[in-house]
Amino acid sequence: MDRIDGRQVNQLRPVKITRNYIKHAEGSVLIEMGDTKVICTASVEERVPPFLKGQGRGWVTGEYGMLPRSTEVRKVRDSSKGKVDGRTMEIQRLIGRALRSVVDLEALGEITIFIDCDVIQADGGTRTASITGAYVALVDALTKLLEQGKISRIPLNSFVAAVSVGIKDNTVILDLNYAEDSTCQVDMNIVMTEKGQLVEIQGTGEEKPFTKQEMEQMLAYGEKGIMELIKIQKESLGELANLIGVEGNGSGCSNQ
Amino acid sequence: MDRIDGRQVNQLRPVKITRNYIKHAEGSVLIEMGDTKVICTASVEERVPPFLKGQGRGWVTGEYGMLPRSTEVRKVRDSSKGKVDGRTMEIQRLIGRALRSVVDLEALGEITIFIDCDVIQADGGTRTASITGAYVALVDALTKLLEQGKISRIPLNSFVAAVSVGIKDNTVILDLNYAEDSTCQVDMNIVMTEKGQLVEIQGTGEEKPFTKQEMEQMLAYGEKGIMELIKIQKESLGELANLIGVEGNGSGCSNQ
Amino acid sequence: MDRIDGRQVNQLRPVKITRNYIKHAEGSVLIEMGDTKVICTASVEERVPPFLKGQGRGWVTGEYGMLPRSTEVRKVRDSSKGKVDGRTMEIQRLIGRALRSVVDLEALGEITIFIDCDVIQADGGTRTASITGAYVALVDALTKLLEQGKISRIPLNSFVAAVSVGIKDNTVILDLNYAEDSTCQVDMNIVMTEKGQLVEIQGTGEEKPFTKQEMEQMLAYGEKGIMELIKIQKESLGELANLIGVEGNGSGCSNQ
Amino acid sequence: MDRIDGRQVNQLRPVKITRNYIKHAEGSVLIEMGDTKVICTASVEERVPPFLKGQGRGWVTGEYGMLPRSTEVRKVRDSSKGKVDGRTMEIQRLIGRALRSVVDLEALGEITIFIDCDVIQADGGTRTASITGAYVALVDALTKLLEQGKISRIPLNSFVAAVSVGIKDNTVILDLNYAEDSTCQVDMNIVMTEKGQLVEIQGTGEEKPFTKQEMEQMLAYGEKGIMELIKIQKESLGELANLIGVEGNGSGCSNQ
Amino acid sequence: MDRIDGRQVNQLRPVKITRNYIKHAEGSVLIEMGDTKVICTASVEERVPPFLKGQGRGWVTGEYGMLPRSTEVRKVRDSSKGKVDGRTMEIQRLIGRALRSVVDLEALGEITIFIDCDVIQADGGTRTASITGAYVALVDALTKLLEQGKISRIPLNSFVAAVSVGIKDNTVILDLNYAEDSTCQVDMNIVMTEKGQLVEIQGTGEEKPFTKQEMEQMLAYGEKGIMELIKIQKESLGELANLIGVEGNGSGCSNQ
Amino acid sequence: MDRIDGRQVNQLRPVKITRNYIKHAEGSVLIEMGDTKVICTASVEERVPPFLKGQGRGWVTGEYGMLPRSTEVRKVRDSSKGKVDGRTMEIQRLIGRALRSVVDLEALGEITIFIDCDVIQADGGTRTASITGAYVALVDALTKLLEQGKISRIPLNSFVAAVSVGIKDNTVILDLNYAEDSTCQVDMNIVMTEKGQLVEIQGTGEEKPFTKQEMEQMLAYGEKGIMELIKIQKESLGELANLIGVEGNGSGCSNQ
Repeated sequence: MDRIDGRQVNQLRPVKITRNYIKHAEGSVLIEMGDTKVICTASVEERVPPFLKGQGRGWVTGEYGMLPRSTEVRKVRDSSKGKVDGRTMEIQRLIGRALRSVVDLEALGEITIFIDCDVIQADGGTRTASITGAYVALVDALTKLLEQGKISRIPLNSFVAAVSVGIKDNTVILDLNYAEDSTCQVDMNIVMTEKGQLVEIQGTGEEKPFTKQEMEQMLAYGEKGIMELIKIQKESLGELANLIGVEGNGSGCSNQ
Repeated sequence: MDRIDGRQVNQLRPVKITRNYIKHAEGSVLIEMGDTKVICTASVEERVPPFLKGQGRGWVTGEYGMLPRSTEVRKVRDSSKGKVDGRTMEIQRLIGRALRSVVDLEALGEITIFIDCDVIQADGGTRTASITGAYVALVDALTKLLEQGKISRIPLNSFVAAVSVGIKDNTVILDLNYAEDSTCQVDMNIVMTEKGQLVEIQGTGEEKPFTKQEMEQMLAYGEKGIMELIKIQKESLGELANLIGVEGNGSGCSNQ
Repeated sequence: MDRIDGRQVNQLRPVKITRNYIKHAEGSVLIEMGDTKVICTASVEERVPPFLKGQGRGWVTGEYGMLPRSTEVRKVRDSSKGKVDGRTMEIQRLIGRALRSVVDLEALGEITIFIDCDVIQADGGTRTASITGAYVALVDALTKLLEQGKISRIPLNSFVAAVSVGIKDNTVILDLNYAEDSTCQVDMNIVMTEKGQLVEIQGTGEEKPFTKQEMEQMLAYGEKGIMELIKIQKESLGELANLIGVEGNGSGCSNQ
Repeated sequence: MDRIDGRQVNQLRPVKITRNYIKHAEGSVLIEMGDTKVICTASVEERVPPFLKGQGRGWVTGEYGMLPRSTEVRKVRDSSKGKVDGRTMEIQRLIGRALRSVVDLEALGEITIFIDCDVIQADGGTRTASITGAYVALVDALTKLLEQGKISRIPLNSFVAAVSVGIKDNTVILDLNYAEDSTCQVDMNIVMTEKGQLVEIQGTGEEKPFTKQEMEQMLAYGEKGIMELIKIQKESLGELANLIGVEGNGSGCSNQ
Repeated sequence: MDRIDGRQVNQLRPVKITRNYIKHAEGSVLIEMGDTKVICTASVEERVPPFLKGQGRGWVTGEYGMLPRSTEVRKVRDSSKGKVDGRTMEIQRLIGRALRSVVDLEALGEITIFIDCDVIQADGGTRTASITGAYVALVDALTKLLEQGKISRIPLNSFVAAVSVGIKDNTVILDLNYAEDSTCQVDMNIVMTEKGQLVEIQGTGEEKPFTKQEMEQMLAYGEKGIMELIKIQKESLGELANLIGVEGNGSGCSNQ
Repeated sequence: MDRIDGRQVNQLRPVKITRNYIKHAEGSVLIEMGDTKVICTASVEERVPPFLKGQGRGWVTGEYGMLPRSTEVRKVRDSSKGKVDGRTMEIQRLIGRALRSVVDLEALGEITIFIDCDVIQADGGTRTASITGAYVALVDALTKLLEQGKISRIPLNSFVAAVSVGIKDNTVILDLNYAEDSTCQVDMNIVMTEKGQLVEIQGTGEEKPFTKQEMEQMLAYGEKGIMELIKIQKESLGELANLIGVEGNGSGCSNQ
């Protein structure tokens, strides 16, 4: 199968991560995957939601939005409609879970980190680009907390990144752009750690159910793409990358 | 591992499907999976949403709700809050996609079927029970349309059912009840056709990422459970079950 | 006049009360009046609304909903509309007032009881069935509090039940089903204690004003129906019925 | 019993109706009952709600509001809260039903009359004052339609007015002011035609149930008050009063 | 140019201020400017918004509404729409800023004054009439606080009033009525103190941009009108007018 | 007075306009004024709002938003709050009026142009930067329509730009950054055409009223700044700038 933009079936689009993109945020990144561009910020607030008060644990939560003209056809603003649509809610919940999966919330302490992912130009894969970019912004925000002495280590157990895979014309492909995404038979989003462990998998075959064999191939392509994305995250972070996964004494969730 | 209720790791809870539960609806089912009880209705309206007008195709859409005291702790009504929460939206979208995946919308014609799944007692697995029960209600509603001559065959390509699987105490288990669900490490919902093809897979390892081997085992348990559920659907439908998957001449999404 | 279902003008439909219908709720009842079916739950929370804080008094409040396909024509969910409609609000306020009228809120102490009445099948008289059924659920919830030692007696001054009456084809009739209700000239809901005292009366003659003589006859039929309903409540409660109206020393609103 | 303001138990407060109070409205009235002051307008629009389209019938609908400082303690604006509260909805529905009960909607033709009742100063009985005042505004609006030749007669079958009665300190009283209303045991609103027929009765004994004898006395006081209010309506309308209840040939709901 | 109502280009409409219009409010005024009629109330609450807690300073905030039939064509209620429209919000913010500009918030202490301006009849210039009338209501409310010993002087630095000016048919005019306002080329609202200092200026030339010379003339007419309005405020307040602008020792914002 | 960033009192911050910033929009610009960065898009839809249907005229409307972390302290999303706040509404209305003032809506024909201004980094003056940038995006969108033959000339009568001025420490300054804006005494926004005519002026002296002399100086600084901004707009547009203000035969609002 020839892909619209000439890529191999298991090839990512060009990826670029620009750190410190917004001056006010503790962490901020512009991530570009092909023509998809997302601003990801990580904002620190020294309080936790009511359900966590007094437990000594922190929280990471995600929000997601699209500029009205990030899309081919102008989208009505959520704020004008007075409510957040279902797709946006799903993505917000996904971003939060994906990042929390690698954060040691006890080591973070009673701090909330708000992850905001705002799509300024959309060309498919915005939710997975959001996760991949937000992770880098999160590292920058945590580094600020470390420098300020508010935490004693970077409370991250692992790198994490995300990518989409799918089936189009009965062929499995990696990192779908919008033209591919809107005509594919199966659409799957994968979130994975650097050790190749799955954090989230969401696949839907509304147009055509898929076999377990197809699923295995999608997972394989997804793993390949995610490993490349984590490599790009590491290059972008430079020396900071070495602070990830270094546990303190007595440690976190993943040992229990 | 001993399960709380003494089940085998890959054993479903007792399942019971009661048809014609609500007299007004074209199709209506009470499905019980252990202590989880959901009323599923299928309502026919002879119109389609604006985005489908004039195309000769039909639509199936899902809504989901929980009675305030279906849960251990009373839930505030969505209508009092003035909005639907993110979890409910996710489930509504899932139910709609799962059922549409087996409906030949062209053979249905310009008709919308509203699937309403209302949980009257919750003990884990309400979204998957909703799909399994709603499928039976859908068959009943379509049969009424067939009897009225509004469609010329039952426009269903396949049976479809859903079940949850998960990892608790590092062991894969099938059909989690609430006590298991609220303490598990990994939670996955699987929707599958009777041929073992995947329609939806949604797995989350917020507490602990999972390996591809664990994923394969979850899929295997899920397939076993779904095949048993489809058997129960068929028993419940009796002779009507024979009308499913019988295609008309030349038509249908799955041929293309 | 011949009634659609062959009843006498002053005859109730068959009534059935099933206790302990939902396992999570402190009190829960399925009440059936003919084809009208309502799930009533009573939920205990050990706090009171802000306007009652620190006064040593409790509260009873009602909420009401209809499943989308409880009605002949599918109703759009309140939660989808983002607001509760006027009819629902009226019914919620009525249920709350009706039950509070027989509760000694001081003897209850700083506890709130949420009454949820959810109609799963509607055939007229859902608001009055809700009150009659909710009363039984309330007794069960209060009994749990008594067993836990959180109250020292059942703080109920009296039984209370409700029924509809109306005028159709210039004839007064009791307990209107939907076919009667939607074509009647006058519609009246009556809530009464076992001593025949009125708690609420709401009558409307939008189609045709009614005379004081007609009103007296409606009241008489209503009283007959309510006395029968209270008898059914008592049978359903068995020995618990003896705990109602037994006052403590010195207490209670009704002594003042 | 001595009433706070020295009135007899069955005596109305001073009533004043000022017609043509707002220049833009087709009908507009300031009604004062003691210190309760309500602006009632009747606005004509030559269209009907969707559910009445093409049936040749008209509609009358009511809305009600209170200025934030019409009350002793400032009320938060409904528009700031983003929703209409339950009490307001109940009153709006009551006003609509009360006025529709005397309008021949077929003779009105495909016209909607919006009744707006806005309380500028509240001292009890605002909903009943609204109905009594709105009726006069409605006559003025209908007279304009008659003058314009859009209707061929005033389509009103009867006068209608409303008043509150109640029980305070075990004594039945007429037309409660706020001090009485907020401390009474039973509160009842009555809407009646000039022939003494009941259009609406809404009584609540949340604080103390009431007997049928008390109810009869409340009805008697209510009828006395309403007859006096209708007399004041007639004086206010002058010659226009003679146009009410004059039927056309063959027509009218009440003949059928 | 001849004005519709025969006024000179720089002539105000007849103005009338009626104090103590609503009995419950601490200050209340009916202001009439021609056919524009606005009820302005000032309500005292002894608390401040969260952002001011514990600072020893007070707050003045404005709200604005229009009765549905205050206008030529009936307006849908904001409360029915579930939100406040942009024009209303703009006016509410303007009223609050205009009044705060002359209040010494520190001398007021931890008290909030809610200004409610409700238009009962609209004929142009409702926002400026609201400010002019609300100022008088504010003085009355502050006087009550002074009498109760809750403040030690009237914390007002100056009188303030507002008026509209505009350009119609290339001519600058003062105090536009609705017929003028809806056809003018430029529309400007001016808020000014008695010393001729500007508090707010908002001019819009959507239909035709305006020159600096036109702007100067609009300012001159505005100043003339406002000086006349302040004279009417003073006459209305009588001796109370002498309490304005008398500062205490240690004093306010304007000295710093 | 020394300004924080060393500028002269009447000096703009560095301004940069990047055209074609978002690939999907018909016109799109990133405007930077110092650290303030706004994405402005112009989207064409070939329909008009209901109030303009069938009149042969077009419409231009503005929307405005801020990314949550565009500001020093993270702002809660409007979409999460379920409503647009008053400040945002004011700005949206201002943007729409400012741009419409120079558009010949009749020459545009039945087309709506949506202007979206989204602040990605805020440092004061976001609303004026929005107008200045949006104008350039509007020219690009209109040029596309011209190229497609949907309009016969660029229907713009003039250039328009906007800037803020204010008084800080009793000194008039141009183009306030956030540090200046949040501590100034007077704040004014000016929108002006290239001929120096005023389109909008909004000045507020909540902290300290201002004299007419101060106002004149603010206007003079504003005019200087706006002339510089229009020069930058022209440089950015290159040859397209020559198409502005070239009228067709007989047309245009400003001739009448």
